[in-house]
Amino acid sequence: MSLSIRSAAILIIGDEVLNSKIRDLNSYTFAKFCFAHGITLKAISVVGDEALEIASEIRRMSAKYDFIVTSGGIGPTHDDITYEALATAFNLPLRLDETVVKRMKQLRSQLTFDLNPEQLAAQYRMATFPFGPEVKNIITDESLWVPVVAIRNQVHVLPGVPQLFSRLLTGLGDILKPRFPDLSSREYLRYYVKTSISESRLAPYLTSVQNQWDATLASEAVDDRIKIGSYPHMGLRINTISIIGLVKFKSQLREIVAGVVENLEGQEISKEEEDQMSVDMTEIKL
Amino acid sequence: MSLSIRSAAILIIGDEVLNSKIRDLNSYTFAKFCFAHGITLKAISVVGDEALEIASEIRRMSAKYDFIVTSGGIGPTHDDITYEALATAFNLPLRLDETVVKRMKQLRSQLTFDLNPEQLAAQYRMATFPFGPEVKNIITDESLWVPVVAIRNQVHVLPGVPQLFSRLLTGLGDILKPRFPDLSSREYLRYYVKTSISESRLAPYLTSVQNQWDATLASEAVDDRIKIGSYPHMGLRINTISIIGLVKFKSQLREIVAGVVENLEGQEISKEEEDQMSVDMTEIKL
Repeated sequence: MSLSIRSAAILIIGDEVLNSKIRDLNSYTFAKFCFAHGITLKAISVVGDEALEIASEIRRMSAKYDFIVTSGGIGPTHDDITYEALATAFNLPLRLDETVVKRMKQLRSQLTFDLNPEQLAAQYRMATFPFGPEVKNIITDESLWVPVVAIRNQVHVLPGVPQLFSRLLTGLGDILKPRFPDLSSREYLRYYVKTSISESRLAPYLTSVQNQWDATLASEAVDDRIKIGSYPHMGLRINTISIIGLVKFKSQLREIVAGVVENLEGQEISKEEEDQMSVDMTEIKL
Repeated sequence: MSLSIRSAAILIIGDEVLNSKIRDLNSYTFAKFCFAHGITLKAISVVGDEALEIASEIRRMSAKYDFIVTSGGIGPTHDDITYEALATAFNLPLRLDETVVKRMKQLRSQLTFDLNPEQLAAQYRMATFPFGPEVKNIITDESLWVPVVAIRNQVHVLPGVPQLFSRLLTGLGDILKPRFPDLSSREYLRYYVKTSISESRLAPYLTSVQNQWDATLASEAVDDRIKIGSYPHMGLRINTISIIGLVKFKSQLREIVAGVVENLEGQEISKEEEDQMSVDMTEIKL
């Protein structure tokens, strides 16, 4: 797998998402992270706390994507089995990491000094990682004891608690930046045009514009081409056309925006206006 | 695939989720639906608007789960390719459904009467479905023209717009009810106990309780056993123990709740209190 990162996927691990105890927030955090860093998020997957499911899903993802993040299943209780499952997936042994134990004791001393042996064993599960030359522990934040365990420079293990996930991901982004696309060439721009013309009426025009630009940009990788989408805001009787592309295509993107405005009686709107309509939309009761 | 429905999966189709334009709401709606109907949701997956990705993902899911729902990609624009992708996945032809066209004209006449041929073709893509003896169109709501296309009594195609998704899913649930588990035996109960004991300290007790009940219920299918989970509320310094099981195990579940309260200095809380803490949690800034 190439060291440069273009494509990404996230594996959310936890029964609590599947049984509707909680709503997963981390995949959206990760989607925003990828968009901001010029990385194409290709897949989101949620599986339960089952070692074989986790192992099979991570193997499938690691065959396809440059950068994979897992979320969840790294606490001390019996239902936290991500490290074991990844060890299985990559055929690696598990080993207690003494350096991490030391950090844990330094940073959480008040929590650990009087644990009984069973409780200490539970705590040490959080420092028992897949081990080998292909595994690295990345400290993304000096004030947190937990490292991001990275396997094959590809799979990165993050906690499920949303604040921790977000914090460690931000730190990881800073560290991995050299492997991310050069943002001057890979950053995405996104424009929105709203129209009250129905989707069936606007579809032929959009198709022709998309086809035209696919042909014009045929020498670019598929993920690098301009993407035009249409999203209905039900109840509001408005459709929003989304036009996304790399910064280097800014003039082409502006040309498309102008064409959509002119041909579909559209009006360009900001991301904030579009987000507001999306929020309104979810509140309409049918 | 058996006609009775025990396991489920959902495939969310749409670039807009992967590029963080929108936050997916439908997988959570579906998770709640499954929990309420005694069905075990086993996987959530999000892929982009790419026919091969959709086809490969749906084939993978259909080999494993009884009941699969897709969300998104069934509008009239070029990026709506779910029906084509499913036709590819199951090796079926696509055919314009004249009955659905008739319903469309009846229920949306004001929108269709003056479309030009290209616009009409776009509109008719929404009534062009995989076709064959294994495909059924299910009308779940007489006031909506769009049917739920069902393939092999297993894969069910729903729209991505959250209000429509929710409305068609509710109708589909009513129609499929005979295939769902008998709720008197399959309905789940869920109890919560909060404690300020740290996860490492409470882990050994929870593990022993989980192991004890796994052994006691060893003759039950794995998905039918009692599941005990622990979820930290960061910042609040509270952990919540979740105890889930079938209604028929109510007395056993209450016994576990009582044990957790007693042994982990816990306090039983309602779903509403737990949800409130989860909301609080997402608002803490680190």
